[in-house]
Amino acid sequence: MGLSEENLIGLTLALVSSGFIGASFIIKKQGLKRAAAISGVRAGVGGYYYLLEPLWWVGMITMIVGEVANFVAYAFAPAVLVTPLGALSIIVSATLAQLVLKEKLHPLGFLGCVMCIAGSVIIVVHAPKEQPIKSVLEIWDMATQPAFLAYVGSIVVLVFILVFHFAPSCGHTNVLVYTAICSLTGSLTVMSVKALGTSLKLTFEGENQLLYPETWFFMLVVAICVIMQMNYLNKALDTFNTAVVSPIYYAMFTTLTILASVIMFKDWDGQSGVTIVSEICGFIVVLSGTILLHTTKEFERISSFRGSAPSSPSLSVRLYNGNDDFVLQHDEENEAPSESMCSRRQELY
Amino acid sequence: MGLSEENLIGLTLALVSSGFIGASFIIKKQGLKRAAAISGVRAGVGGYYYLLEPLWWVGMITMIVGEVANFVAYAFAPAVLVTPLGALSIIVSATLAQLVLKEKLHPLGFLGCVMCIAGSVIIVVHAPKEQPIKSVLEIWDMATQPAFLAYVGSIVVLVFILVFHFAPSCGHTNVLVYTAICSLTGSLTVMSVKALGTSLKLTFEGENQLLYPETWFFMLVVAICVIMQMNYLNKALDTFNTAVVSPIYYAMFTTLTILASVIMFKDWDGQSGVTIVSEICGFIVVLSGTILLHTTKEFERISSFRGSAPSSPSLSVRLYNGNDDFVLQHDEENEAPSESMCSRRQELY
Repeated sequence: MGLSEENLIGLTLALVSSGFIGASFIIKKQGLKRAAAISGVRAGVGGYYYLLEPLWWVGMITMIVGEVANFVAYAFAPAVLVTPLGALSIIVSATLAQLVLKEKLHPLGFLGCVMCIAGSVIIVVHAPKEQPIKSVLEIWDMATQPAFLAYVGSIVVLVFILVFHFAPSCGHTNVLVYTAICSLTGSLTVMSVKALGTSLKLTFEGENQLLYPETWFFMLVVAICVIMQMNYLNKALDTFNTAVVSPIYYAMFTTLTILASVIMFKDWDGQSGVTIVSEICGFIVVLSGTILLHTTKEFERISSFRGSAPSSPSLSVRLYNGNDDFVLQHDEENEAPSESMCSRRQELY
Repeated sequence: MGLSEENLIGLTLALVSSGFIGASFIIKKQGLKRAAAISGVRAGVGGYYYLLEPLWWVGMITMIVGEVANFVAYAFAPAVLVTPLGALSIIVSATLAQLVLKEKLHPLGFLGCVMCIAGSVIIVVHAPKEQPIKSVLEIWDMATQPAFLAYVGSIVVLVFILVFHFAPSCGHTNVLVYTAICSLTGSLTVMSVKALGTSLKLTFEGENQLLYPETWFFMLVVAICVIMQMNYLNKALDTFNTAVVSPIYYAMFTTLTILASVIMFKDWDGQSGVTIVSEICGFIVVLSGTILLHTTKEFERISSFRGSAPSSPSLSVRLYNGNDDFVLQHDEENEAPSESMCSRRQELY
């Protein structure tokens, strides 16, 4: 199917990652439910009993395993392949929610799942083959080519303008400000994660890359970008409804990541027009599926629907950026009232 | 983009066809509204005044032009390309309904449109190239190859069983009976329409094919299949809710047509796995978009939505098989109560 062996490993890791991350939400939620049943106090209203519940820790470990698999996937396959597949974790979590938690999946939610799968298949079969990288210095050359430096420069300027000019004045009224900061930084996170992942992969294969200062530089960039991205994502989620933030963030983050990868790794060089068009369409389809799943999740909550876009503040699935990538996380206690969302989030991380 | 000149002509004709058919619903509806305003009697309650309204006739002619363009499209491009694009007429009609009739499009309906377009683009860029056909005898050879004869044989046997065994006993309770008869016959309609269209195209190009009895045989098959298909489609629409019939019919009809075309014209021979998988995914995406558009149309009608599949009997878009192909038609008078649906349909055709 036009997949190289490296791509196949990366694809498998990305799928395993989505499976683990999707499952982790359900396991953690089961753990929280059990903790609440034993103690009588919910996490959302100030209880820490879930920390004594082994099931919650199993969920946490499952999530970390998923994040690690995702990190390693970037070392093997192009970001154009790995990043959009992050949406598959919602399918795993929606399926498990139905099987384990007996939550009812809306028929249109099922349609959203079908679309995410169809779109992912299209992306996978058209994924570009990467040139094997032999040293971190090669990545350094790609990162310092004029086109990519121009991209990084524009991102830094845009982020500065957004953080210092727009965030104080309209960050709390316009959903695009915080999500744009996350997405712009996110594209650099993924690129640096890919550089670091590849360096570590080479080191494990016997070619020590830790001797090069470039490896440590990429590590620093990962740390800065991850902190920046997590900080503003939490701000966005604390200020706006998840059903609004999630699809916008997924769309911007994935688009910018694909753009960054296309510039830095020249993913589309030598690919035919048909392949590029198919990849873009596949991405649009996955995005539409994500929007549909989020919207129908909202239907379940508001239970009555009058033909307008959803605006209820509580939702069972929310977007959370764990390390370096777009992942979706169920609210640990989605029965809790939305007023306590800020405090709840602070407890959980 | 891998499109041959013949495919490009067929594609253009298919798009023009969808445009005309989509527009015809809106023009006819405008005509009916105007007729109702002048006469004070609605078509749904027994009025024939719309026959005096020029706008209604303009709509009718627009529709016939669309159907002819669709018929000719089959002579140029493979059925695998032309048939799924029929879904684009709903987009045209949804857009025009918003612009001309000021009907509000549901946000998820917009998403459905985006999916239909993305899926169609995927199908178009992966469409197979056809071998140029020089005589109706070549088509006759393809139609009489053992594999296709076996397909036709199975279709005939299945249709007989459905018509004489299942239709009398559960035709009025199970939506699959009538829609299956339409879809099975429909796949043969498209194949014979393609044979006839190609013969007429060759005749117009100076190679008279009317001398061959094979051409007349295909004409006979077209007539029988169209009558059969229209008859059972009307039965299905009179018995069941359009929102249920339309997506099932679209899915079965398009799948069987693709299957028939793949067997008869060997569309997939010499195509890579990637291409075939992409075509199937593109079709699934268009189908999902169609389901979404139909479901959200239903939301508008029932105006309140409680998380279950729609079951209201009235709907503004319905599936109608004009000649040889899947098209969608707005109810001429969708304000009329659903009780009068049967009588209304008899008036209109």
